[in-house]
Amino acid sequence: MKIVIVGAAGAVGKTAVEALSGRHEIISVGRTSGDVQMDIQDIESIRAMYRQVGRVDAVVSAIGHAHFGPVHEMTGDQFMEGILGKTLPQVNLVLEGFDYMNDRGSFTVTTGVTNRDPIPGGSCAAAANGALDGFVRGASVDMPRGIRINAVSPEVLEASRVQYDGFFRGHVHVSDEAVGLAFSKAVEGCLSGQVFIVD
Amino acid sequence: MKIVIVGAAGAVGKTAVEALSGRHEIISVGRTSGDVQMDIQDIESIRAMYRQVGRVDAVVSAIGHAHFGPVHEMTGDQFMEGILGKTLPQVNLVLEGFDYMNDRGSFTVTTGVTNRDPIPGGSCAAAANGALDGFVRGASVDMPRGIRINAVSPEVLEASRVQYDGFFRGHVHVSDEAVGLAFSKAVEGCLSGQVFIVD
Repeated sequence: MKIVIVGAAGAVGKTAVEALSGRHEIISVGRTSGDVQMDIQDIESIRAMYRQVGRVDAVVSAIGHAHFGPVHEMTGDQFMEGILGKTLPQVNLVLEGFDYMNDRGSFTVTTGVTNRDPIPGGSCAAAANGALDGFVRGASVDMPRGIRINAVSPEVLEASRVQYDGFFRGHVHVSDEAVGLAFSKAVEGCLSGQVFIVD
Repeated sequence: MKIVIVGAAGAVGKTAVEALSGRHEIISVGRTSGDVQMDIQDIESIRAMYRQVGRVDAVVSAIGHAHFGPVHEMTGDQFMEGILGKTLPQVNLVLEGFDYMNDRGSFTVTTGVTNRDPIPGGSCAAAANGALDGFVRGASVDMPRGIRINAVSPEVLEASRVQYDGFFRGHVHVSDEAVGLAFSKAVEGCLSGQVFIVD
């Protein structure tokens, strides 16, 4: 398969690269790294990426950022950072990708633990994740030409333990391999409309 | 309790009014009807509503619209209709309401069935609902002064059977009373961070 992995250099994206690169042609996409550079928040940049890459069998995205802070100190604009920084970019990657996706291909987005096991200050991220989980479930029943769509929703990665130290007290940390298996199932498996939880 | 019900004249809002008005002071809010008029998509209008109403013990919102159509024909702007028409307005009602909410008060938002039991063309609504479900779970752990936050997520109402005829094939229809009970539990109960499903 020819697989585009957006955010391939990130902690989560790396697990997808590791899990899939042995068996498939990987095109890594990043803001400043990878085979193709793309600004995920710029729809024209997404379109340019697809024009450059051409037809694909799978698109995996592992990107996104959100605002973190107490809900009673959050503004509407801060709330929207998660939607505009994590939800909409990954949705746009799907919406713009249909013309390039081969029959029976797949889209896989990345969400996260915050909407099922909340952390202090995480309401923006929880909303962004919930929106993606909902989108995947809702979109799966519409998908044309046997195309599938799933989400991978990992707990905090072992590899991110230092970066997120103190934010996820008591949460388990999951291995790169476990997260990679979820991407493998999403891309190489047969299910659609699923949120593959890695806990 | 002094309870603001936004969207009080709608099919869902009416169930909250019916369930709560016998025991509490209800301030009904609508775009063109009710005790106070407010445009939920205009943050200044939300602020003006709160200034007019003053301190409250509960805020219930039962509003929102989304784009309906196949995901592979949807644009990013159409996707955002659900976020901007259902998610953000209800989030803003919470964010702007903290200064007016009494200790141990509650916010209740309305989501819906589409992110757990999808329908054709419903991916935008599913994302909007998922975002709200996630926001409620995430925000609940931050809430100051014992304030609670919940969502009511009803199946299609019996009262909306004609309006939505053909869109929700095979879905059960729930009674006004069942939906009203969920609002009662959200406002008069003790839980927080819950999505009260009415199936």
